[in-house]
Amino acid sequence: MAKIKAAIIGVTGYAGAEIARILNGHPEAEIVWYGSKSFAGQSFSDIYGNFRAFADEILQGEALAEAAASADVVFTATPQGFAASAMTKDILGQTKIIDLSADFRLKDVSVYERWYGITHASPQFLQEAVYGLCELKREEIRGARLIANPGCYTTCAILTLYPAVEAGLVDPDTLIVDAMSGVSGAGRGAKTDNLFCEVNENAKPYGVTVHRHTPEIEAALSEAAGREVRLTFTPHLIPMNRGILATCYATLTKDVSAEALREVYEKRYGAEPFIRLLPEGRYPETRFVEHSNLLDLQVTVDKRTRRLVLTGALDNLVKGAAGQAVQNMNLLFDLPEETGLQTVPAVP
Amino acid sequence: MAKIKAAIIGVTGYAGAEIARILNGHPEAEIVWYGSKSFAGQSFSDIYGNFRAFADEILQGEALAEAAASADVVFTATPQGFAASAMTKDILGQTKIIDLSADFRLKDVSVYERWYGITHASPQFLQEAVYGLCELKREEIRGARLIANPGCYTTCAILTLYPAVEAGLVDPDTLIVDAMSGVSGAGRGAKTDNLFCEVNENAKPYGVTVHRHTPEIEAALSEAAGREVRLTFTPHLIPMNRGILATCYATLTKDVSAEALREVYEKRYGAEPFIRLLPEGRYPETRFVEHSNLLDLQVTVDKRTRRLVLTGALDNLVKGAAGQAVQNMNLLFDLPEETGLQTVPAVP
Amino acid sequence: MAKIKAAIIGVTGYAGAEIARILNGHPEAEIVWYGSKSFAGQSFSDIYGNFRAFADEILQGEALAEAAASADVVFTATPQGFAASAMTKDILGQTKIIDLSADFRLKDVSVYERWYGITHASPQFLQEAVYGLCELKREEIRGARLIANPGCYTTCAILTLYPAVEAGLVDPDTLIVDAMSGVSGAGRGAKTDNLFCEVNENAKPYGVTVHRHTPEIEAALSEAAGREVRLTFTPHLIPMNRGILATCYATLTKDVSAEALREVYEKRYGAEPFIRLLPEGRYPETRFVEHSNLLDLQVTVDKRTRRLVLTGALDNLVKGAAGQAVQNMNLLFDLPEETGLQTVPAVP
Amino acid sequence: MAKIKAAIIGVTGYAGAEIARILNGHPEAEIVWYGSKSFAGQSFSDIYGNFRAFADEILQGEALAEAAASADVVFTATPQGFAASAMTKDILGQTKIIDLSADFRLKDVSVYERWYGITHASPQFLQEAVYGLCELKREEIRGARLIANPGCYTTCAILTLYPAVEAGLVDPDTLIVDAMSGVSGAGRGAKTDNLFCEVNENAKPYGVTVHRHTPEIEAALSEAAGREVRLTFTPHLIPMNRGILATCYATLTKDVSAEALREVYEKRYGAEPFIRLLPEGRYPETRFVEHSNLLDLQVTVDKRTRRLVLTGALDNLVKGAAGQAVQNMNLLFDLPEETGLQTVPAVP
Repeated sequence: MAKIKAAIIGVTGYAGAEIARILNGHPEAEIVWYGSKSFAGQSFSDIYGNFRAFADEILQGEALAEAAASADVVFTATPQGFAASAMTKDILGQTKIIDLSADFRLKDVSVYERWYGITHASPQFLQEAVYGLCELKREEIRGARLIANPGCYTTCAILTLYPAVEAGLVDPDTLIVDAMSGVSGAGRGAKTDNLFCEVNENAKPYGVTVHRHTPEIEAALSEAAGREVRLTFTPHLIPMNRGILATCYATLTKDVSAEALREVYEKRYGAEPFIRLLPEGRYPETRFVEHSNLLDLQVTVDKRTRRLVLTGALDNLVKGAAGQAVQNMNLLFDLPEETGLQTVPAVP
Repeated sequence: MAKIKAAIIGVTGYAGAEIARILNGHPEAEIVWYGSKSFAGQSFSDIYGNFRAFADEILQGEALAEAAASADVVFTATPQGFAASAMTKDILGQTKIIDLSADFRLKDVSVYERWYGITHASPQFLQEAVYGLCELKREEIRGARLIANPGCYTTCAILTLYPAVEAGLVDPDTLIVDAMSGVSGAGRGAKTDNLFCEVNENAKPYGVTVHRHTPEIEAALSEAAGREVRLTFTPHLIPMNRGILATCYATLTKDVSAEALREVYEKRYGAEPFIRLLPEGRYPETRFVEHSNLLDLQVTVDKRTRRLVLTGALDNLVKGAAGQAVQNMNLLFDLPEETGLQTVPAVP
Repeated sequence: MAKIKAAIIGVTGYAGAEIARILNGHPEAEIVWYGSKSFAGQSFSDIYGNFRAFADEILQGEALAEAAASADVVFTATPQGFAASAMTKDILGQTKIIDLSADFRLKDVSVYERWYGITHASPQFLQEAVYGLCELKREEIRGARLIANPGCYTTCAILTLYPAVEAGLVDPDTLIVDAMSGVSGAGRGAKTDNLFCEVNENAKPYGVTVHRHTPEIEAALSEAAGREVRLTFTPHLIPMNRGILATCYATLTKDVSAEALREVYEKRYGAEPFIRLLPEGRYPETRFVEHSNLLDLQVTVDKRTRRLVLTGALDNLVKGAAGQAVQNMNLLFDLPEETGLQTVPAVP
Repeated sequence: MAKIKAAIIGVTGYAGAEIARILNGHPEAEIVWYGSKSFAGQSFSDIYGNFRAFADEILQGEALAEAAASADVVFTATPQGFAASAMTKDILGQTKIIDLSADFRLKDVSVYERWYGITHASPQFLQEAVYGLCELKREEIRGARLIANPGCYTTCAILTLYPAVEAGLVDPDTLIVDAMSGVSGAGRGAKTDNLFCEVNENAKPYGVTVHRHTPEIEAALSEAAGREVRLTFTPHLIPMNRGILATCYATLTKDVSAEALREVYEKRYGAEPFIRLLPEGRYPETRFVEHSNLLDLQVTVDKRTRRLVLTGALDNLVKGAAGQAVQNMNLLFDLPEETGLQTVPAVP
């Protein structure tokens, strides 16, 4: 069988480069288009020295239509608004699109425009787009043309909370997501705020009560709850390259034993290739999932306060972006979901 | 006036060394006893090269009675159980004790023994001991002989939540403290878990639902609420040397505007020399308080969920340990509270 | 063909765990013995959470003879002295040994004993042992039974300097190796010196003029020079997990152009799968080789001082330890040298 | 006595902010002008949150003449070229100038223009300017109007090598300076290269054979040697906020014992308030001088190769910039040199 021809628009961003890294080791795909707005004309390995001798290709631009014409699948790892602006019926007719921005994640265009503060350029594709959280939408993804790849915080928060909410163990009005992220989540743009000396030896919250991932988490958990959910989400920036750790809180609706809680999660995720429910007494650590597509989970009952404390960890650039995008590609092309994604994380 | 003679037991731990650093720049105190169990007989500056030419004294042991005989105040920066075991009426009769361990923080000895898993060796002093959270106990501290210096997480969590709880703005049954700490909080013991390569590039929760600082936070907030409070507390370890950031959640009992909330905090803390309520839109960052005795605060109303998000940052070794200990010393000896503690944090 | 059966003694050290990680993705090998002195009886993935679901095997002890009986190759990633003490003719008769310690690296037992300060327990195997620096000893390795896998600093320093010395471009009496290493090079032992807070935000030299890797570097470069070489080597510890960067200095014996210098290196290393001579103007960075078996190199003529500045970077746990060990295994078993080692480094 | 009125141009850069921090604790100086090109009109503490409640002043522009008119001393912590362009006879007639850029460091304008690649706008002031390396130029500094404050690498390299060169112990043609710096040395400009994720977990050389600090080091050591010196200087960037560690190499001209070498350094620096020659067997570590004006030194004879290995560590923003600038101010205004600079470094 011929290999899947893949185009990456935005390959010089952190998520784009990570797609390139993963596809480089993928047995069934090859990259035919390295697209970059800022560095077109230069060699990819001159921007990312790690790729020297692996991918010395000259970077092309970010013409989506052109990339789509030459590829079986196009990954758009681009800023908010790009994919919505460039999308056309023709493009969707000739290739699969996996968009890593938020452009097609929210079904309600008004919610998108309120939280992102930009006008959506192609709301006509919102209904068709499938939210690419593989563990929840596997079947819909297989037949899709346009995948809205989930955000990093959202993947972590949703997968960590979903089973408890779905099983009705917790009151949906009490959900709180407190999360921390490594700095690569902020992208590769040259901003003072992300300089080493501004971020190192520092921890800070940001986007308090207004972070854009909030409605995306709420949308998925509303599905789980069967009714509208509103929650509080607080992200923090901490001094490490990669990783998201989410600590989630929810008040129990009834007495639940630790065993019963575990069972709910095991039933939901027992067969999932990328989710590891940790043994009792062990908690997720970002280093144990770094560079992999894994999500590590632990679920705890706080009997004193009748609350659940649910913790999850993933690599924001892999399961939170590029890895999940490739997982989506595998689903789209009927490959085993793990293809090209079976990495043992490296420690230290 | 003669200078205050200070003894430090446990001076080669991180908190102990930090007391030495602060007292070195304190105009009204001098260190007369550098006590260390592990390094007695060696020069202090051979253990802490930063002190070379500032404090080359030979380290003495940790004989509390002997240190007490030669000092006006003794700081015990020692493991749980040491101060309780070594304390006597005679010692308390001849010197002031500022204990940085948890030994005298909890009034109820059964709570101490349950959470710490050790038998308390001198419960007879528990009632006399004053909890040295200066902003709340200032008057009691002035006349005390035995100060129980608060924990690092607890100082941050209590000061961040106190005014809202005290003012009845929030339901005391909904309090959640989610906090992260730099690694110095784990001490200088040679443990694999705290090696650079185990901690760097990693974030993890620990002590989930069972961390020992929980009852201490609850005790203080119970005072604020006027009734017993139970809360959920989750600490996390993140890769930086110093700093604690606490993000606290609480459900409102009634509609409160951002302005009204601010007013409660300004009224409570407006005259405090070490608390900075940040301007609207700015959030605490640990780097902005590092090496100082400051606590930075921000208070936010999440209207969508009727919750407060209260964030505080401090340096765990200063306001969370050594700085507060010196603040307590200043109170004990009728000095202006800021004496020796007016440092501008260094950034970066 | 049956897979190569591999045993790892010392699998819970950083180098040992890295062998496990690499072999986990190796198509022609399987691990049959996870050996650990400290953690025998526990599950490997309880020590290294990254291996959960990949290698949950119960750890065995470090009985070399027993491991040798069950394996085609044994990796000893153990402290100095272990392999020398445990080695026997029988063991060498039944399996291949790749020793990652220094025990068999130096041909002259008196040099070993002087620099390491321990008596060598089996000098009778020194002559048979082959120094496993694959790029220099490829042919000898293929037929060997006992491989002395080189040290991390030494691999970097030797490969960086070798071609210039061999070509007679530089005066062998002027060689200086100034190198820095990430903290994983110090191992996983619970030592205060390697605690996060002792190492983070710090740079320091150590082992100045007396580091044990010196004679190993000298031995290889003496071969290159065709006469005895003595050099100055200064290692430094810097706050990162992995990576070695060596900056080497040597005075030219004659005028050499940048082009001529490059040519010497290209001729020597042009066909090497794991050495990348960087384009002019680009210098090695440890991040671009992290987690890979690559060595990045740049060679510069300092015309003003008639010196060469030769810079090399590798991952101390891969090309500097586990990766090279697997490269040696591939040579021993007639596999293509790159098998299981073709990783694109991940950035960031 | 009235306090010294100080102006800082470029106060929002890292070195400028560090001057503000030090002067904030200086008993004899007050800041009357906070100058910033990029942030004029905003509050200083809105840019540097650490200064909140300490320095909330509104930032002024960078009009040197205006600042000079209102201040006894002006610190220009500005990019190359600014001070040379703005300097006039009138300005020098009414205030003292301490310039932290390289504009007035090199006496030979052609050397400046060759290494910096810009035309010098006011070469007429070069002869008058005094090179402000206090330990070497103390007397000249006292009477000066225009101080060229040395670079960070240069201060470290010069002070580390000077006594050995001056004493004729080493061959001046064999000097090599290999140094590493924390990231704050690269400034606060928004450059991709200095983003956290580009710098963290990475070590790299840069400016190999062409770094601009080379002629400055050579000029001072030429004075020490009594003849022209050319040397090789290689800087490296490593992942920490602050600190420079220089490891210097030089070949002995004759047999020198460790004691004799020490004596040379003790004689030269024994009375210096900011230089600590470490006890034998201990080596400089950047953490032990962080946030202080100290330089830690160790000198070692490598008998095997007849070389000296001389190591020095300082804080690039303090002794390498702002601290030395204040030390210069103290000299200019006849204050004890240590005034405002007697800080114990904080560890960790």
